[in-house]
Amino acid sequence: VGFEDPGHPDHRAGLALAGIESVPVPVDDRGVDVEALAASGVGAVMLTPAHQSPTGALLAPDRRQALLAWAAEHDATIVEDDYDAEFRYDREPVGTLQGLAPERVATLGSVSKSLAPGLRLGWVVCPPRLVNAVTDEKRIEDRSSPALDQLALAALIESGRYDRHLRRMRGVYAARRETLMSALAKHAPHLELRGLAAGFHVLVLLPPGMSEEEAVTAARERSVGVYGLRDNTFGEPRWPPALVMGFGNVGEGAIEKGVERLAEVLRA
Amino acid sequence: VGFEDPGHPDHRAGLALAGIESVPVPVDDRGVDVEALAASGVGAVMLTPAHQSPTGALLAPDRRQALLAWAAEHDATIVEDDYDAEFRYDREPVGTLQGLAPERVATLGSVSKSLAPGLRLGWVVCPPRLVNAVTDEKRIEDRSSPALDQLALAALIESGRYDRHLRRMRGVYAARRETLMSALAKHAPHLELRGLAAGFHVLVLLPPGMSEEEAVTAARERSVGVYGLRDNTFGEPRWPPALVMGFGNVGEGAIEKGVERLAEVLRA
Repeated sequence: VGFEDPGHPDHRAGLALAGIESVPVPVDDRGVDVEALAASGVGAVMLTPAHQSPTGALLAPDRRQALLAWAAEHDATIVEDDYDAEFRYDREPVGTLQGLAPERVATLGSVSKSLAPGLRLGWVVCPPRLVNAVTDEKRIEDRSSPALDQLALAALIESGRYDRHLRRMRGVYAARRETLMSALAKHAPHLELRGLAAGFHVLVLLPPGMSEEEAVTAARERSVGVYGLRDNTFGEPRWPPALVMGFGNVGEGAIEKGVERLAEVLRA
Repeated sequence: VGFEDPGHPDHRAGLALAGIESVPVPVDDRGVDVEALAASGVGAVMLTPAHQSPTGALLAPDRRQALLAWAAEHDATIVEDDYDAEFRYDREPVGTLQGLAPERVATLGSVSKSLAPGLRLGWVVCPPRLVNAVTDEKRIEDRSSPALDQLALAALIESGRYDRHLRRMRGVYAARRETLMSALAKHAPHLELRGLAAGFHVLVLLPPGMSEEEAVTAARERSVGVYGLRDNTFGEPRWPPALVMGFGNVGEGAIEKGVERLAEVLRA
């Protein structure tokens, strides 16, 4: 199965646990490289087209078309992790690939970002031919997810309160991102940023000559928790050294202070 | 991995999903045949010693000793599904194998029988050397179970109400089992029964010449749901044809009526 590179190591580990080999497919600023995907000879791909994890790229419109054409031509299956899709701050979220090719695309969603990861609730919208196989395997593996939690979520969605919560939280997270961007512009205007105005993290390219390990270690010594992009790479590294900066669970005051301290590190 | 035969087909399917081959180990009235287990050459075994699923047998004391001696000699791991262990009606439950050999035995427990299967909460008490491997795999597979549900269960246990609930439900289920046994004695005294006074099912041997399929079909035509033992067999069949009769989620009135109707079938 083709897997975005860089991509989340835990998802790759999940594939490995299921006995599935991940084939790295390079990601650039326009999302996954569909020509490289086609050349790899895989029969399926797992990707994060709405907000690539971790680069923050949106899969470019021409690549979306090329991806769907590739799937049609090779009778391939696309697993679309609809990661962060509810949290786009500059415009309406893009539609899912599943909506365009319901026979070829399985979309994964969850409430981990919208409500809380501790709820462990999600869904698969998948081609009808795969529904029985997916539910059979889920039944054998864990006998399905907790019933009360599912019923509570259904009640929340039906009441309209889930949508209201999403609208409210989009504002909260947009403000956190805005704080992060302003703080970076103020304290470290020389740094290059990547990624859409979406989700819960920003990618910051490091100044020339600085390694991720160095930057992460120095930041942690100042009590600022950031991650290196390299931890998400599993084929040939194609991106310059960068930090993944999360802002989802940090208040605006802490973001401001964190960037100020990080700027000292990244100035060096 | 050695697996009890007869044993639950879904558990076997779960092993298969994890890429593990199940080797059938025969079960008789005294539980799993430890000599056959030793002869099979497996390095691990999964079993239900407190109340064998589905025969209802208790692993005999000499076999418990032989099993632990086998594990020590071959550096083998025992996975003890502590199935139905809280629900023994005639005496105190037997202790776990894990308590006797904490370095060799991993015990699986859950609240599926004691509270509700829809809660999907359970635990593994495992040898210290396996704790990291088990938690790592759980994290990759499902990022662990819902946090709120776990906290609610912890509060229930700490408050003492979980134990009170178990005591109360033991009485409820013992009464249902008693109703089932009396109804069988009254309506079908010729039938031979198997299994401990424990858990939520009784094994009923069929009259000579009757097949399980025949009995199950005829019972269902009378709106009585029972299962054939053969569905749990995966090696050589060693048990006579029998029905598995569950009484856990059926009221006493329905049990009485069901047995009356079933007796018509089993008289034929």
